[in-house]
Amino acid sequence: MSAEPVHDLAHIGHAELLTPRPEQSLRFFVDVLGMEVEASEGQSVFLRGWGDYQRYCLKLTEAPQAGLAHMALRARSPAALERRVAAIEAAGLGEGWIDGDLGHGPAYRFRDPDGHLMEVHFEVEKYSPPEHLRPSLKNQPQRYTGRGAAIKRLDHVNLLAEDVRAYRDFAADVLGYRLYERIELDDGSEAGAWLSLTIAAHELIYVRDAYGARGRLHHLAFWVDTREEVLRAADVFLDNEVEIEAAPSKHAIAQGFFLYGFEPGGNRVEVTTGGYFVFDPDPDPTVWSEAERAKGQAWGVKTVESFHTYGTPPVEEPVGGGS
Amino acid sequence: MSAEPVHDLAHIGHAELLTPRPEQSLRFFVDVLGMEVEASEGQSVFLRGWGDYQRYCLKLTEAPQAGLAHMALRARSPAALERRVAAIEAAGLGEGWIDGDLGHGPAYRFRDPDGHLMEVHFEVEKYSPPEHLRPSLKNQPQRYTGRGAAIKRLDHVNLLAEDVRAYRDFAADVLGYRLYERIELDDGSEAGAWLSLTIAAHELIYVRDAYGARGRLHHLAFWVDTREEVLRAADVFLDNEVEIEAAPSKHAIAQGFFLYGFEPGGNRVEVTTGGYFVFDPDPDPTVWSEAERAKGQAWGVKTVESFHTYGTPPVEEPVGGGS
Amino acid sequence: MSAEPVHDLAHIGHAELLTPRPEQSLRFFVDVLGMEVEASEGQSVFLRGWGDYQRYCLKLTEAPQAGLAHMALRARSPAALERRVAAIEAAGLGEGWIDGDLGHGPAYRFRDPDGHLMEVHFEVEKYSPPEHLRPSLKNQPQRYTGRGAAIKRLDHVNLLAEDVRAYRDFAADVLGYRLYERIELDDGSEAGAWLSLTIAAHELIYVRDAYGARGRLHHLAFWVDTREEVLRAADVFLDNEVEIEAAPSKHAIAQGFFLYGFEPGGNRVEVTTGGYFVFDPDPDPTVWSEAERAKGQAWGVKTVESFHTYGTPPVEEPVGGGS
Amino acid sequence: MSAEPVHDLAHIGHAELLTPRPEQSLRFFVDVLGMEVEASEGQSVFLRGWGDYQRYCLKLTEAPQAGLAHMALRARSPAALERRVAAIEAAGLGEGWIDGDLGHGPAYRFRDPDGHLMEVHFEVEKYSPPEHLRPSLKNQPQRYTGRGAAIKRLDHVNLLAEDVRAYRDFAADVLGYRLYERIELDDGSEAGAWLSLTIAAHELIYVRDAYGARGRLHHLAFWVDTREEVLRAADVFLDNEVEIEAAPSKHAIAQGFFLYGFEPGGNRVEVTTGGYFVFDPDPDPTVWSEAERAKGQAWGVKTVESFHTYGTPPVEEPVGGGS
Repeated sequence: MSAEPVHDLAHIGHAELLTPRPEQSLRFFVDVLGMEVEASEGQSVFLRGWGDYQRYCLKLTEAPQAGLAHMALRARSPAALERRVAAIEAAGLGEGWIDGDLGHGPAYRFRDPDGHLMEVHFEVEKYSPPEHLRPSLKNQPQRYTGRGAAIKRLDHVNLLAEDVRAYRDFAADVLGYRLYERIELDDGSEAGAWLSLTIAAHELIYVRDAYGARGRLHHLAFWVDTREEVLRAADVFLDNEVEIEAAPSKHAIAQGFFLYGFEPGGNRVEVTTGGYFVFDPDPDPTVWSEAERAKGQAWGVKTVESFHTYGTPPVEEPVGGGS
Repeated sequence: MSAEPVHDLAHIGHAELLTPRPEQSLRFFVDVLGMEVEASEGQSVFLRGWGDYQRYCLKLTEAPQAGLAHMALRARSPAALERRVAAIEAAGLGEGWIDGDLGHGPAYRFRDPDGHLMEVHFEVEKYSPPEHLRPSLKNQPQRYTGRGAAIKRLDHVNLLAEDVRAYRDFAADVLGYRLYERIELDDGSEAGAWLSLTIAAHELIYVRDAYGARGRLHHLAFWVDTREEVLRAADVFLDNEVEIEAAPSKHAIAQGFFLYGFEPGGNRVEVTTGGYFVFDPDPDPTVWSEAERAKGQAWGVKTVESFHTYGTPPVEEPVGGGS
Repeated sequence: MSAEPVHDLAHIGHAELLTPRPEQSLRFFVDVLGMEVEASEGQSVFLRGWGDYQRYCLKLTEAPQAGLAHMALRARSPAALERRVAAIEAAGLGEGWIDGDLGHGPAYRFRDPDGHLMEVHFEVEKYSPPEHLRPSLKNQPQRYTGRGAAIKRLDHVNLLAEDVRAYRDFAADVLGYRLYERIELDDGSEAGAWLSLTIAAHELIYVRDAYGARGRLHHLAFWVDTREEVLRAADVFLDNEVEIEAAPSKHAIAQGFFLYGFEPGGNRVEVTTGGYFVFDPDPDPTVWSEAERAKGQAWGVKTVESFHTYGTPPVEEPVGGGS
Repeated sequence: MSAEPVHDLAHIGHAELLTPRPEQSLRFFVDVLGMEVEASEGQSVFLRGWGDYQRYCLKLTEAPQAGLAHMALRARSPAALERRVAAIEAAGLGEGWIDGDLGHGPAYRFRDPDGHLMEVHFEVEKYSPPEHLRPSLKNQPQRYTGRGAAIKRLDHVNLLAEDVRAYRDFAADVLGYRLYERIELDDGSEAGAWLSLTIAAHELIYVRDAYGARGRLHHLAFWVDTREEVLRAADVFLDNEVEIEAAPSKHAIAQGFFLYGFEPGGNRVEVTTGGYFVFDPDPDPTVWSEAERAKGQAWGVKTVESFHTYGTPPVEEPVGGGS
């Protein structure tokens, strides 16, 4: 039985993003990405997409530097939560319980081996819309407002990491993530790993930090249902003076359709859709070689240099050996 | 030379819509269709789409009853304007010059044989956006705001008519419209005619008034660039409690992709895209028989009954013989 | 622990469809839906979509009458397979093991309480494309040929059932399906249930059989990645003389975007995309009342009558109480 | 009256493309672009898109080198044809009448000042489909086959030119093209001009030849109705080993949505849609500066170098001053 895959965690419930320009960042997430403010507390604003079944998927917090404060993983059941906490403690990475936060109950905090702060919890408040956000279709948590890029929910988190292989092993063995794709360089080291808790082709990504720094964020990705909405989001970015880092195109890895830009706080944000589903319960991860990656994205678009190096908090100089 | 087609008019510059519920209608055009208020004057508000090169394409005017107050046709040149005015006068349908209105110069007013008030003019003010609506691309008149259905411009006008054949002959002979498609019933009468001044498959439509009434409006159609935006508009309508008369699908005639609903004043409004271009300078109009029309829209959708009868101003009882 | 949800089955691996017109049905699945013939054996042809990781998702078999011969569920692991077989046997619905079939190993056959033949298995052959179907992207099983509707894979199966509630309880309790949405009529009975093994909003549907018959098929649904491909499929259907039962629109339940037609053998086939993901591990099923269902599909489209009554094999007269 | 714009030509009726690899080029246009072979004659094959009202839009001819053999412009009427022939003769660029070719009547041949061979004609054969290509909708010339990229028709022609300004003046003054956009470099010279006979934002483009060569082709562009079809065409290109020069994105100039690749004969081919309509009969051309062009395409994509230099027939070394 021990050989059976762990299936205790459901999804990334929310992420907490840090911004040194809270007003402008808030305007970006509300006006450009089209999220709703669900609550405010201290230096934080809680934001939701129209498809979130919970109260929020993004906690935006004022801080001296951009970056990811923490990300939260929701367990499938109380028992599943207990099992994961035990596994994390056994791995020596646990930091202990917190009482909870707005919208969710007790959470166990830990750090992945690269130092990114995470938490697992089970109890959450389901979203109950105010009158002006009540949807017409009862299987939809909130009205579709259509404002800005009108993102539906948080889709995936891409973390920069010093040692991709070590951390994705942690994600797989301790958290129960499945590895679907990875990049193996000519020297045998790993440059990136695409992991998921579900049939979606990626929910958590580790990509090598070009500066050898630790605990940094590559980007948060927000979901829209169609490629046309990604194209439309590019027009919305353009006419809202949002810096576009990479125009809409299709990734080779995971085949997601993307648009990358920077929110005013400096964090990279993706609007995404597409990809493929992994229904195979027993898949062989796709391994991309250095030569294959050099071909660029699916349709041959070369990735801009900043995409390989920039993360938040930004670092001026390479800390380690660089890539 | 006289056999050569008239090519003096460029397009429908704007339409004036009447509404008994001006506040709610304004909210619809601004919040749901995503238009901008360019100016207000007396009982009228002037509204524009993000793609309009002129200041506005819609004049919304408070009135006891819904309906079309007038529509304006822009001539290709001052000389072309003179020629059309002479032709209209010769047809005995002229009403005389007005000094102009907000955004355009002198206009010659007339009525089509069914009594719809129209005007032709040449001089217009080109749109100059305020700072907050300045676009990023200089070949675009205004920023893309993406609000609501985010319509680009007025696309076509569909007029109910007592005698379709007579009025489309007027439109062709006197105004220079080209006839691209028409419906001929088994009794030889004409139930609808699709006309255009350009390669677009329809810009002016005459459809038989089921009540035999005169001067009524079937609908105004507003353009978006993609079918996905029409589908998205349906979600926007749904969650803004706009009554959807006909869900998105594809017309057989003219092959336009449509969404029909009612603005709060009672006028039917379409969000449209698609269709085809008529590059042939010498086309044979497509003639649809009664049996062919009975097959429904392109993919077999049956047209709802109200679509064949309702117009503005609404009439309670059949005035003439009915449909 | 017993309260924890069963998570032993991965997905519907394939379905076997019966057709009295095998040549024409084959042409439909190859030319119109764009599937590839992977193998032929006896009276059966095995067909695949370009996204199938297995050798096929559809077995098309000549038979006197249309209908579903069987559907196969792939288990997550050998141990998971054993557990489900034990549960099925305990429920008294097992029929015993077969040696396997082209492309998969030993399978345990059983019938759902309505009499639909099903099987569970684990061992499968992964697809290995011939040279002319080798894809450019290594994370894709097969080249994208783009022929016809170019469906990607089998998406879901909709079964007609005499007693929806009883059978969805079986699917949930014995097979481990999760119930996401259902229709409850005013008399308390259940008219439909939408179930899934994953985050996809539906993979198995039970809908009440209007004739009270047993073991019938409502439809097989095939996936495409975008709504534009569904619209395009409607044009492909139209120009291939495929009877369209329901033109593209959006379901209220599960929010899938659909196109329904009939393959030449008489079975209903859907081309589908969209819907939503259920990331909540603890969702409350959405319950639709009779009044809510009467509103039609998401954008108000009324469902055609045949959709509520027709299934395969077809029945002439109501067997039970009718609808 | 003389100040009134010429309106005598309707559209580019067809283009004749030269290929040194006729078999492979034919396979590309049939299998990848999805065109139909309408006729063959000598070393030429005549190909059509599903939306062509004429018999063909592309004449593909075997030749030692790639390039454009000629392009044909259809006049609006016999009288319009006479006027244009007189104007061309007056400009001293006429070469004389030919009897016609498959599908069209007498044509007057001439060269633009850069040496590109052109012709004007009026009489054409309207397309009459064989049984297997008969469409379901009678306002459509041919069945929609959906094969490959399934292009609808030839959209525009982009010609490399030694002296852009001189040639676009010719196109405007003698042929009646309207200038909608242009690039003016810092030295006052013109790097590109976008011209049209209709409301479409571009039908004929002149772009400076980086090698100062004459009579070369930049690309032929074929129309599809949606951006999704352009994205899909990129997948079709990818899996048919067609070299993609520029992945789908949005042009800044003319705002067309593009995909560029090379057909096996070496000619650049575009799959295109989008853009905007110029309803203004009196527009000011948009002028792009060198600095504005340096920003890349609409969403910031940098144009690949080959796009600025490569044309057919290819030239090894710069003939003139280079770019």
